[in-house]
Amino acid sequence: MTFAQRLDRIRGLTDTRLAALLRTNTERLEGDAPSPERLSQAIRHATLGGGKRFRPFLVIESAALFGLPEDAALDTAAAVECVHCYSLAHDDLPAMDNDALRRGQPTVWKAYGEWAAILAGDALLTAAFETLSQPATHASADVRLQLIAGLARAAGVAGMVGGQALDLEAERAAGRAPLSLAAILHLQRLKTGALIRFSCEAGAILGEAGDEAREALRRYGDAIGLAFQIADDLLDAEGDAATVGKAVSKDAAAGKATLVSLMGREAARAELARVETSAVAVLLPFGDRAGPLIEAARFVAARNR
Amino acid sequence: MTFAQRLDRIRGLTDTRLAALLRTNTERLEGDAPSPERLSQAIRHATLGGGKRFRPFLVIESAALFGLPEDAALDTAAAVECVHCYSLAHDDLPAMDNDALRRGQPTVWKAYGEWAAILAGDALLTAAFETLSQPATHASADVRLQLIAGLARAAGVAGMVGGQALDLEAERAAGRAPLSLAAILHLQRLKTGALIRFSCEAGAILGEAGDEAREALRRYGDAIGLAFQIADDLLDAEGDAATVGKAVSKDAAAGKATLVSLMGREAARAELARVETSAVAVLLPFGDRAGPLIEAARFVAARNR
Repeated sequence: MTFAQRLDRIRGLTDTRLAALLRTNTERLEGDAPSPERLSQAIRHATLGGGKRFRPFLVIESAALFGLPEDAALDTAAAVECVHCYSLAHDDLPAMDNDALRRGQPTVWKAYGEWAAILAGDALLTAAFETLSQPATHASADVRLQLIAGLARAAGVAGMVGGQALDLEAERAAGRAPLSLAAILHLQRLKTGALIRFSCEAGAILGEAGDEAREALRRYGDAIGLAFQIADDLLDAEGDAATVGKAVSKDAAAGKATLVSLMGREAARAELARVETSAVAVLLPFGDRAGPLIEAARFVAARNR
Repeated sequence: MTFAQRLDRIRGLTDTRLAALLRTNTERLEGDAPSPERLSQAIRHATLGGGKRFRPFLVIESAALFGLPEDAALDTAAAVECVHCYSLAHDDLPAMDNDALRRGQPTVWKAYGEWAAILAGDALLTAAFETLSQPATHASADVRLQLIAGLARAAGVAGMVGGQALDLEAERAAGRAPLSLAAILHLQRLKTGALIRFSCEAGAILGEAGDEAREALRRYGDAIGLAFQIADDLLDAEGDAATVGKAVSKDAAAGKATLVSLMGREAARAELARVETSAVAVLLPFGDRAGPLIEAARFVAARNR
């Protein structure tokens, strides 16, 4: 199977699993009692409206390093994707990034209203933890608790929420000096890096791997998280809306410092290549099994070409 | 100790534990890296700005039925309170209930802005699950997973989020018939009842109680959840802002159906007395240890007197 085929296959599996999870959630509300229709639609829009399912790919392929079949990592992959989709639904809100378009579609608040987007995000964040608490996720209670603790750290103040807050505080602080390169690297490590790193580490947790392997997956996750961000900034600086599926050059238009604006395009490309190399290097001890993750690093770095 | 003293004591313990939990969360971000100041302030405002800590009281006193000391239930109590505070921060937003005042103070969005209120809520919901995943919450991994699954159900689409969505859908559907009494009872069971019920059940989970005791605590929780709602509606219909600490008669002004407007005040008072009696009855098998929970049922029912 080529990398594109693998990614596509995992996307299909994840979509099916997510749809089943959301159905289970809604069925609990059935019977005579009225169910919140608009909320259900907003949740489906937030989760099933496309998306590469790159984080589920990382969970499943990281778990495969330790011999786990796709099925054994799929619920964890779906939980991680729920958290990703929740963060998009909230970050797109008018009070935050005020984005009307995502993946070529109206964002959740644009399609269903702000309250539905807020509650859909809340529901997805909650559903992620519920999913991880279930025996179907992994037979070992200790593994499930490690996944929950790790996902909570990646999502919370020391991760995504903290990163988004730093971003908004910097953007809205009148008269404050623009962020330094170090500050932007820190912010992105929290905002987007933390969940990507956890996606990779989750594979090692599911595989009950030793400390060394777990640390290797964390380092791989850090590297591709950074590569992802540099590639995203390059796309934003160079792409056009039709290719990217969302508004581009928004950061530049807002006069916002990015990795690319601070480093320059050429230096950013060189850094991207360096990070790609280090992501690949950390996987060498895993041998042939690491093929898909190595290709993933190349895929991320190549997004802007 | 009188009931008021017990409630006050648990309030103090919960405040201290919550403050420590939030400190731990923020400390992870320290060092050279900038920390999101406004977010931290919003989180503190959302959690430490007063509140009776009634749900923590229920967790701790339910656990006490099974011989657990306060300390052994305090992290669970704090996690439940984090979820309660998150829901207030989100529900108060302009896109939802648009409340500017709570506990006599500005609401989180009013004090720190909408984005900070959204992210503070997200952070608190996440922190609740992280707290429950930790060994300090309970020595048994299985107990911690049951708490996580139960809290997620109470908070999600089949609980608080679903109830809030039903409320908003009913309020905003132009030309839709007003809700029936059955529909309002269902809505409130989800919106406020689910977390109160879980608070009581959590004590049984922590105490590793049998099915019968666990079911009794769920029924007690259902009863006081309903009592809480009737008393709240009576307060809204009769109280004044100075006593209640938030805007009152808002539902009536909005022409919104409530339990009280549909039943009439006298019938609502009679139903409140009936529910109080059934809450007390379900606790009889627990003997003297149930004293504080019996007083809690009376306290809830008496709030509007």
